[in-house]
Amino acid sequence: MKEITSPQNDFIKHIVTLKEKSRTRKKSGEFVVEGIRELNIALSCGYEVVSVLFYQDLFPFENLKDIDVENYKCIEVSKDVYSKIAYRDTTEGVLAVLKTKTHTLDQLALIKKNPLILIAEAPEKPGNIGALLRTADAANIDAVIIANPKTDLYNPNIVRSSVGCVFSNTIATGTTEDIISFLKDKNINIYSAILQESVNYTTQDYTKPSAIVVGTEATGLTQEWRDASKNNISIPMQGKIDSMNVSVAAGILIFEAVRQRGF
Amino acid sequence: MKEITSPQNDFIKHIVTLKEKSRTRKKSGEFVVEGIRELNIALSCGYEVVSVLFYQDLFPFENLKDIDVENYKCIEVSKDVYSKIAYRDTTEGVLAVLKTKTHTLDQLALIKKNPLILIAEAPEKPGNIGALLRTADAANIDAVIIANPKTDLYNPNIVRSSVGCVFSNTIATGTTEDIISFLKDKNINIYSAILQESVNYTTQDYTKPSAIVVGTEATGLTQEWRDASKNNISIPMQGKIDSMNVSVAAGILIFEAVRQRGF
Repeated sequence: MKEITSPQNDFIKHIVTLKEKSRTRKKSGEFVVEGIRELNIALSCGYEVVSVLFYQDLFPFENLKDIDVENYKCIEVSKDVYSKIAYRDTTEGVLAVLKTKTHTLDQLALIKKNPLILIAEAPEKPGNIGALLRTADAANIDAVIIANPKTDLYNPNIVRSSVGCVFSNTIATGTTEDIISFLKDKNINIYSAILQESVNYTTQDYTKPSAIVVGTEATGLTQEWRDASKNNISIPMQGKIDSMNVSVAAGILIFEAVRQRGF
Repeated sequence: MKEITSPQNDFIKHIVTLKEKSRTRKKSGEFVVEGIRELNIALSCGYEVVSVLFYQDLFPFENLKDIDVENYKCIEVSKDVYSKIAYRDTTEGVLAVLKTKTHTLDQLALIKKNPLILIAEAPEKPGNIGALLRTADAANIDAVIIANPKTDLYNPNIVRSSVGCVFSNTIATGTTEDIISFLKDKNINIYSAILQESVNYTTQDYTKPSAIVVGTEATGLTQEWRDASKNNISIPMQGKIDSMNVSVAAGILIFEAVRQRGF
């Protein structure tokens, strides 16, 4: 069994950088996942393990027996090392370095003839992306596409807030322009969620191939999405403030589509 | 015009404590709101101003002219003082101390004959409460009730994440037991959102007086809510992970009710 006791170890420094820097994740093709549940989900979704690190006092090595990881990839770390690499709220005692997957549009395989897709343009908060991915998993939709992403998918706050749904969903990223071409090529109807000049979201038929598109809370969707839309849709705002969290709005739209499709 | 230049000023210390301590908010009946938009919403919703503090370089006094606050309640503060009392991300230059309102069940006036109510039991994250309140405002439901609250409503993270919806909604708090009695007295149907032994949420009729109840993501609802329910409802989980953000789930349930009611 390998053991690392020095926080100054190069691999430990690499892990810290993997958590902090999108660039390092892209360059190395690696990222960090914390917690045994998340690790199990990643493995069941075909992610490849580089190393599993555990702090014996919190997470005994025996607990790794049920997990399909070769012994030589397991590394016992000291308390100091674990404190350096773990998220502050996590006391689970286990984390892993995994290989990223690529998420290009041309690799996006839509198996069903009648796909339902959620698209989020330039979402800013990792927590909102995590919530979107949880909704997409629960609804078992065919794909999530992030347009003009502000961060990579393996940002630790996305991984954490998605509680594993970043692994279970079919996800692609791309530019708004490329995604619109992709959808038009495949004859998928675009429903852009905007407030102005739009129809009530419940009036549309989402039983045909459909992509529901949401923008940021601050600025909404870009003009391209408005123009490419079969119909622009909105959730009627009937309150005093007219403001809704983007992941809540996406959940309402997606589950209206799922309801129409008979779950 | 009053002016405060010392961060050691007693009132400034009081403001810091108001932001940090639920107990101080309860004892003094005061809380802090940041930003001109939020202040305006609070005023339009009948909140009473104790003081408005502004940092002239960021927020010139002239900008307060449109606001219905007496001059003697306005206090100019120095940069040091402003840094001490402002939230780290806020550079707007204005905040106010307001009087809290009480939110007891016996003061909860349901005006419509056919109310729609959202109840959240022991919600833990202020951000989730903020998102719930935004949804409730957008759906223009009749009341939000927090059962067994973990924090007071004037927690600065709730105020901030609700973007003013903590002011615009009709809100009550109480124990689960008292709320169930309240609902039964008024013949309001209870629909508790739970995963086990529940029916698809779209099968129920929410056009009658209805309360939709959600629990925490970690432990769900207590047994009392399951027992008191007309029917337990759930959003069918069809993915690999079966996990949804509580404010997204509440949004889906509330807007199904609103859809049935014809918006």
